[in-house]
Amino acid sequence: MSEYLLETLPLSSGAIYRLFSGAICPRPIAWVSTRDRDGNTNLAPFSFFNVVSVAPPVLGFSPLLNGEGQPKDTIRNLEQVSECVIHISGESLVEEMNMTSASLPAEEDEFDLAGLEKVAMPGISVPRVAVAPVAFGCQVREIVRFGDQPLAGNLVLAEVVSIHIDEAVWNGRHVSLEMLKPIGRMAGSDYARTSDLFALERPS
Amino acid sequence: MSEYLLETLPLSSGAIYRLFSGAICPRPIAWVSTRDRDGNTNLAPFSFFNVVSVAPPVLGFSPLLNGEGQPKDTIRNLEQVSECVIHISGESLVEEMNMTSASLPAEEDEFDLAGLEKVAMPGISVPRVAVAPVAFGCQVREIVRFGDQPLAGNLVLAEVVSIHIDEAVWNGRHVSLEMLKPIGRMAGSDYARTSDLFALERPS
Repeated sequence: MSEYLLETLPLSSGAIYRLFSGAICPRPIAWVSTRDRDGNTNLAPFSFFNVVSVAPPVLGFSPLLNGEGQPKDTIRNLEQVSECVIHISGESLVEEMNMTSASLPAEEDEFDLAGLEKVAMPGISVPRVAVAPVAFGCQVREIVRFGDQPLAGNLVLAEVVSIHIDEAVWNGRHVSLEMLKPIGRMAGSDYARTSDLFALERPS
Repeated sequence: MSEYLLETLPLSSGAIYRLFSGAICPRPIAWVSTRDRDGNTNLAPFSFFNVVSVAPPVLGFSPLLNGEGQPKDTIRNLEQVSECVIHISGESLVEEMNMTSASLPAEEDEFDLAGLEKVAMPGISVPRVAVAPVAFGCQVREIVRFGDQPLAGNLVLAEVVSIHIDEAVWNGRHVSLEMLKPIGRMAGSDYARTSDLFALERPS
């Protein structure tokens, strides 16, 4: 067993990143489109992501500052236009999603890079990925910042104002795992399929 | 395809809960111990959970208000003692973890219910689960509240001040999936094993 009191035995940020990303998994993936004030669009995946509230409906995702302590394009865009679309992509779009994780110059468009068509999302000015089966149109309520060190979080709290969903995936009551085939993010380059399921009834 | 503008076609909170929990998955699971000012301990799992920052190291999890709009014991305890231990449990402890999701009276102890031994966690006053392979001792920085409706979120932002980790799981650099066997939460009673992996190299 190892025990660390961080105050007395500090781990490097890189070590904490590897520990968090290796132990806190599988992680759902937010595939997020944003735009800047000139209309340039950005698309990128983030796996520090989850539900934070149902009523009101709020999702949270946290792009980290990069290794130089600089914010990613997603955060820079949200400072200009405080709207985003959070897509959920299953196995069928994982190659395209991975392509959009490249570090492009801000003016290059990941939709074009990955060959993805844009369509309008109801209620907001940011386009969605046409082929994504699930998309949440969001107004950003707040960005909670954790300083300016490399790998500091920037937690985006995004209220869902519109929903696009393929009827083959959701019948109004249940999400079909067979149709969505959601995937989880693991450490490094690894992803997990959600093919190996088991059920446990909650105790009353 | 279905598109919903929530303002004009409101979905019930129950429908949004089912959509979120079915589409935003697999979710990592925080198994959280807390205590009240009298020293009574609580232990419960939450899957609206993820990393929010690496430097500083901050984890976030969001217990929802229940169907009556009341907070769970975890939130009530954190209002009294603003510390918690966030454990990561793999397949080997899933039965015990599920047992601690029961709705017990506040004075009953889920450690006892599930037959789990407590041990001290460095740096904080809340005990950890002795057999859990990974445990993060946390000071709560903030609880972000989203109102008082049923299913409103209560996002706990918890800064990691100490770490316990089984050396069989972490060699100081990598987490062993074979030893940890992390599991993800799906909708309803379903869980996903992380046995079916694939890798995609990030583009440069």
